[in-house]
Amino acid sequence: MEDQIFNFIERYFKLTEAEKETLRSFDLFRAYHKGETIIKTGDLISGSYFVLEGCVRCYYLIDGEEKSTSFYTEGQPFEPIRQAGSQISAHYIDCVEDCILSFSKPEMEEVMFSRFPRFESICLKLSEELVSTKQLAFDRFKNASPEQRYLDLLENRPDLLQRVPLGQLASYLGMKPESLSRIRKRVAQKNLS
Amino acid sequence: MEDQIFNFIERYFKLTEAEKETLRSFDLFRAYHKGETIIKTGDLISGSYFVLEGCVRCYYLIDGEEKSTSFYTEGQPFEPIRQAGSQISAHYIDCVEDCILSFSKPEMEEVMFSRFPRFESICLKLSEELVSTKQLAFDRFKNASPEQRYLDLLENRPDLLQRVPLGQLASYLGMKPESLSRIRKRVAQKNLS
Repeated sequence: MEDQIFNFIERYFKLTEAEKETLRSFDLFRAYHKGETIIKTGDLISGSYFVLEGCVRCYYLIDGEEKSTSFYTEGQPFEPIRQAGSQISAHYIDCVEDCILSFSKPEMEEVMFSRFPRFESICLKLSEELVSTKQLAFDRFKNASPEQRYLDLLENRPDLLQRVPLGQLASYLGMKPESLSRIRKRVAQKNLS
Repeated sequence: MEDQIFNFIERYFKLTEAEKETLRSFDLFRAYHKGETIIKTGDLISGSYFVLEGCVRCYYLIDGEEKSTSFYTEGQPFEPIRQAGSQISAHYIDCVEDCILSFSKPEMEEVMFSRFPRFESICLKLSEELVSTKQLAFDRFKNASPEQRYLDLLENRPDLLQRVPLGQLASYLGMKPESLSRIRKRVAQKNLS
């Protein structure tokens, strides 16, 4: 289990044995069942997550309707989105499948930063990269037609098509389920002919 | 001019005289004319910006058409969006008005971080906040109807309606200029009646 986190970090820099030892000393791992809620709108955010196994979904309840906006799977870090200027979650996060997540609190970060200051520099670089990645995803979404968004998903995250109910994927792609069904058929036919 | 940057930073923490002195020692300020290009798709990204005066626009050239995705005005920091895994700009940035920007290079950050380590912690907090803000903006965009997006703009950034041509605003709001005109009229009529 730890190996997956170490591998993720080591995509950026090699960990020393002392660093690994400190990471191991934290109580990082949490198991959730399919359908279980990790955080609700209005809950206090107490830390950040990393997906080791499974798939989680972020969604908003708007006029009684669930609007899914993000899915995170193996190897992806995520943090609940804060309501402006607060530490309060703006949305729900639940488990699309049975999940194993690592959960790290600010106190653990502080220990890491004070013992191994380079962790703070690395976290800053990771965070800056994430700002850019998120803006790029937003820009692509804005500039793409619904069919292009579906093709992007097919190219970049094809596993979601197997793992996530169609209705949730439709709202994630910013369209109605009927439109997504129509686009899927059209694309499948194009690929056949 | 420096005061605006100091004020921005001091929304988060009080600067010492030594810190201000070091910031003053950098060659930070750059003036641009209306219409001038700051960076083009494919250019190497060499630092990050902060708007002191004016309005800049980020856009993509897609099939010969300009798709505007972001506008930054007084008091907002911004960095060109990187193409995945590179230091290459994914888009164009130009000036909607005459602009004065501050421009900081990684070398300046390194000087600040080594002389005043708390700057690195603050930058990490700012960056994490930015990740959350960007995801929240993306989520709101996904969940909102075109009319709601226009109403959001009217509430949160009404100055853009005066400063930016309608065609650019339409693509920023993910709609055709005709749709934006129609929505503007409808909203204005509602407000009158």
